[in-house]
Amino acid sequence: MSDGHPLLTLDDVRRAQRRIAPHLHRTPLLRSATLDLWLGHRFVFKAECLQKVGAFKSRGALNTLLALAETGRRPERVVAYSSGNHAQAVAWACARLGLDATVMMPAGASDLKRRATEGYGARVIVTRTRAETEEQAHRLRDEGAFLLPPFDHDDVIAGQGTACLEAIEDGAEADAVFAPCGGGGLLSGTWAAAHGLLPGAAVLGVEPGSANDAARSYRDGRIHRFEDSPPTMADGVQTLALSERTFAHVRRTDGVLEVDEEEIAYWTQWLTHLLKVTIEPTAALGMAGAARWIAGRDGPLDVLVILSGGNLSASTRARVWATDHLGRLPLPG
Amino acid sequence: MSDGHPLLTLDDVRRAQRRIAPHLHRTPLLRSATLDLWLGHRFVFKAECLQKVGAFKSRGALNTLLALAETGRRPERVVAYSSGNHAQAVAWACARLGLDATVMMPAGASDLKRRATEGYGARVIVTRTRAETEEQAHRLRDEGAFLLPPFDHDDVIAGQGTACLEAIEDGAEADAVFAPCGGGGLLSGTWAAAHGLLPGAAVLGVEPGSANDAARSYRDGRIHRFEDSPPTMADGVQTLALSERTFAHVRRTDGVLEVDEEEIAYWTQWLTHLLKVTIEPTAALGMAGAARWIAGRDGPLDVLVILSGGNLSASTRARVWATDHLGRLPLPG
Repeated sequence: MSDGHPLLTLDDVRRAQRRIAPHLHRTPLLRSATLDLWLGHRFVFKAECLQKVGAFKSRGALNTLLALAETGRRPERVVAYSSGNHAQAVAWACARLGLDATVMMPAGASDLKRRATEGYGARVIVTRTRAETEEQAHRLRDEGAFLLPPFDHDDVIAGQGTACLEAIEDGAEADAVFAPCGGGGLLSGTWAAAHGLLPGAAVLGVEPGSANDAARSYRDGRIHRFEDSPPTMADGVQTLALSERTFAHVRRTDGVLEVDEEEIAYWTQWLTHLLKVTIEPTAALGMAGAARWIAGRDGPLDVLVILSGGNLSASTRARVWATDHLGRLPLPG
Repeated sequence: MSDGHPLLTLDDVRRAQRRIAPHLHRTPLLRSATLDLWLGHRFVFKAECLQKVGAFKSRGALNTLLALAETGRRPERVVAYSSGNHAQAVAWACARLGLDATVMMPAGASDLKRRATEGYGARVIVTRTRAETEEQAHRLRDEGAFLLPPFDHDDVIAGQGTACLEAIEDGAEADAVFAPCGGGGLLSGTWAAAHGLLPGAAVLGVEPGSANDAARSYRDGRIHRFEDSPPTMADGVQTLALSERTFAHVRRTDGVLEVDEEEIAYWTQWLTHLLKVTIEPTAALGMAGAARWIAGRDGPLDVLVILSGGNLSASTRARVWATDHLGRLPLPG
């Protein structure tokens, strides 16, 4: 069953949890009685927007560095490339452990994210193109730095799975668990945690229809790859493709749902309004998928949704709120 | 010292807390290490946006109804008039206690707030003018309903003070406490709680410069009254005047600060970004005042800020985000 890639287990996620718990927030579970009433099911949200750096990414980055230190391989220098939450997560985790961090960001990455990354103490190098961020990062790796990948690493995946583990430990019931799917790190870790703790629960990934490489990969049984970053306001899942490692996990989930940009904006608005937390569009993917999934199913079912993060640029925020969706209530049918 | 109005004490707030605690969220304290680093002081925020109905108003409304029930005066019918959070608070509290609720709302009140109020089970009557909401509410009172006022009632004030009480009980230190000031209910209750628990802490109200009736009343020692609702995006503090009851408390605070609309938008954006919670402009008043107050003071001082609520209409949200303020970091000087 391993396709050459051994699958992570609940034990891996538990080990990650023990490592990172002293450093991170145990983020709360949020509920909305109004939403449950309207939709006829019971929803619970794991609020990773309230996590350190405002996203679940701090879990995987920190777990990877702590696991290295545990086995005597504590790196002197760490490098990463990212235009998003992974940049801040690596910078934050390195600061926490006193490691030297360099983050390559492409020109055009939001000024706010660059300053936040620098604010955590990392050296930020802005390159002209996205391809160049990768080249530069590999060059530093060849010079001896540890390259901390955004998803293609067992310890990153195990770290991301701790969000789901905590949610279930804290009492979240789940007939189904929903997580956004970009490179597949969060979804893979979520699957490992849920599969071990609640083997009867369905685990589903969600991605924008315009960025449906994972859904196509799931359907066809082989990895689909985009040539260029697909266009979507959910900028956390613009990854070109899954890795063999994450695909091995994703293919064992119960599927990857596709939603459109209007559904993403709609649920970003409604969850911001009902739960009173700041979420980025990527974080609304889970609920957008869940809303599709429950349609026609008899309730009440228990649905666990991982809210991935809360970092929005001004332009993304403007896109989300360009149309007022709060005039249309989320009622079934 | 009572000016004819006996002042509420910490005991009153404690009594309110015991009554309402089983029904309400103990809202979390939020902090931002980044904000503290930038400003050189330590800020802690009491997140009443995460309270039932999304605002502190549920505290005072519920306390008033429970106090009536305790003394055998449980009303059969309750009436209130409001275009804002008080409407939802009364509807919610009545539903909780199984009481019949009627809420008068002026035409032009946001559709979302009207539906939320109806969603909690209240009968909503929309009147043509704001004056008419009051007339109709008084008519129902004369017919035997209990009129639950938005701030001019001891049990309402004591209830609002429980937010500050909880914050201090939960470990918030405070050299100064900041709360928005509309009718003065929240500020009066905050004063009673802080004065009793931390007698050395300064307590300050904050209001928009365009709605500065409380600041003028504080300065002149007599109540100033606006003829019409003053224009401000902080729609929770558009009240025309303090009451004698709230003024008796407000004049014992350390002052009422005035801030402008840009400062309100600025801090609504930054707190939304840094704390990852949804706040309405009224809730940003405390921080806007605190930012003025710390200027030139040696740090680090401990500052407690009451975030009053998180209910925004689409038009208010658009006003808040019309200009991107996240490009200008909150650094001193």
